[in-house]
Amino acid sequence: MSKKVEVGQKILIKNEEYALENKRGLAEQKKLCLNMISSPGSGKTTILARTITDLKGRVRIGVIEGDIRTDIDAQRIRATDAPAVQINTEGACHLSAAQVSDALADLPVAELDIVIIENVGNLVCPSAFELGESGKIVVLSVAEGDDKPAKYPSIFAKSKVLLINKVDLMEAVGQVDFDVEKVKADARRLNKEIEIFAISAKTGEGMAQWCDWLEKSVKEVRNK
Amino acid sequence: MSKKVEVGQKILIKNEEYALENKRGLAEQKKLCLNMISSPGSGKTTILARTITDLKGRVRIGVIEGDIRTDIDAQRIRATDAPAVQINTEGACHLSAAQVSDALADLPVAELDIVIIENVGNLVCPSAFELGESGKIVVLSVAEGDDKPAKYPSIFAKSKVLLINKVDLMEAVGQVDFDVEKVKADARRLNKEIEIFAISAKTGEGMAQWCDWLEKSVKEVRNK
Repeated sequence: MSKKVEVGQKILIKNEEYALENKRGLAEQKKLCLNMISSPGSGKTTILARTITDLKGRVRIGVIEGDIRTDIDAQRIRATDAPAVQINTEGACHLSAAQVSDALADLPVAELDIVIIENVGNLVCPSAFELGESGKIVVLSVAEGDDKPAKYPSIFAKSKVLLINKVDLMEAVGQVDFDVEKVKADARRLNKEIEIFAISAKTGEGMAQWCDWLEKSVKEVRNK
Repeated sequence: MSKKVEVGQKILIKNEEYALENKRGLAEQKKLCLNMISSPGSGKTTILARTITDLKGRVRIGVIEGDIRTDIDAQRIRATDAPAVQINTEGACHLSAAQVSDALADLPVAELDIVIIENVGNLVCPSAFELGESGKIVVLSVAEGDDKPAKYPSIFAKSKVLLINKVDLMEAVGQVDFDVEKVKADARRLNKEIEIFAISAKTGEGMAQWCDWLEKSVKEVRNK
């Protein structure tokens, strides 16, 4: 085995150990934990802020925000009154399970139903690093084009949910060419079990179905 | 120095050697080489196809396409009659200079004025790997939001040109909130010299200025 592969594997194994520890702790407390992954600018933070507001009184959500720099996103989440912890990776292209372990210690987990981790905007690297989540959510904005499951298959193959966001951009005729049915078929070819919701976090379209799925998933974790 | 850092540096140094070799070869032949970097779905391939068509008879362009999987993008470039070589990274999140070295051997470089390398869709990792280019082009679609220079500063700091794409999406009032002047100011704070063009590869808006810049840059390289 080359030195490069050996060291790469050691980093992954160390990450896996932290991820298992996070997972065990969250499972003991019967908390749902979701790892949200997408390209930059697909609308992850807008989706989270709207989801928190729409589920107020039904589901309590806390957020771990991953960004290379700035705490813009944590501020946007806190404006909804939900707790948020910001991690700055200072250049790194994904969150690690060790960073999430530290962030979990700073969140009032006992008072929450769901912890959502918003990963660094990157459709490639975060899919290789487990953080201790119950499942991954991949977000694809219609502005990114409908060839993304074919071109970036790993994250679509590994995700529990696909959120197709910004569907309002398709409404102005000819504004954005995006074939929702093609994306659904391509994603299901990679991942038979994937749940798919077409939403607009801006207009609210489709948000009710997504929120119902979250509430149902919280109950399933609680009754385990 | 830890083993991890040491091996990481060796990979970067090896890449740097290939990059220097590519750069030297292209400079000897007086060819402009640009490394195009962006999030997935910002419109890189659409920009390239339109640029090639708009510059027909003035500037000859060849393309190296980097994707994790599929040769969809190389096919789109070849449909314009320009030569294109597809690299599939099979999971890797950026192109390496060694891959570009192989691809250059498959392109008719002597017959071209510009080689454009379309990197893997990723706003983070590709900025750390030199490929031998004369300069980097960062593409930002207005659908991605105007906070991206602040959140992903490295690539904006290192690029010769910023293309703000899909400006047609701002025209339908209220469709996309994106403050072009804020992005320009944030990018120039990171990088005083950066050239900025606001374009729509779909409608053609702003393409003439970008194409003129390319033609002027080709002449500068030729007269060096």
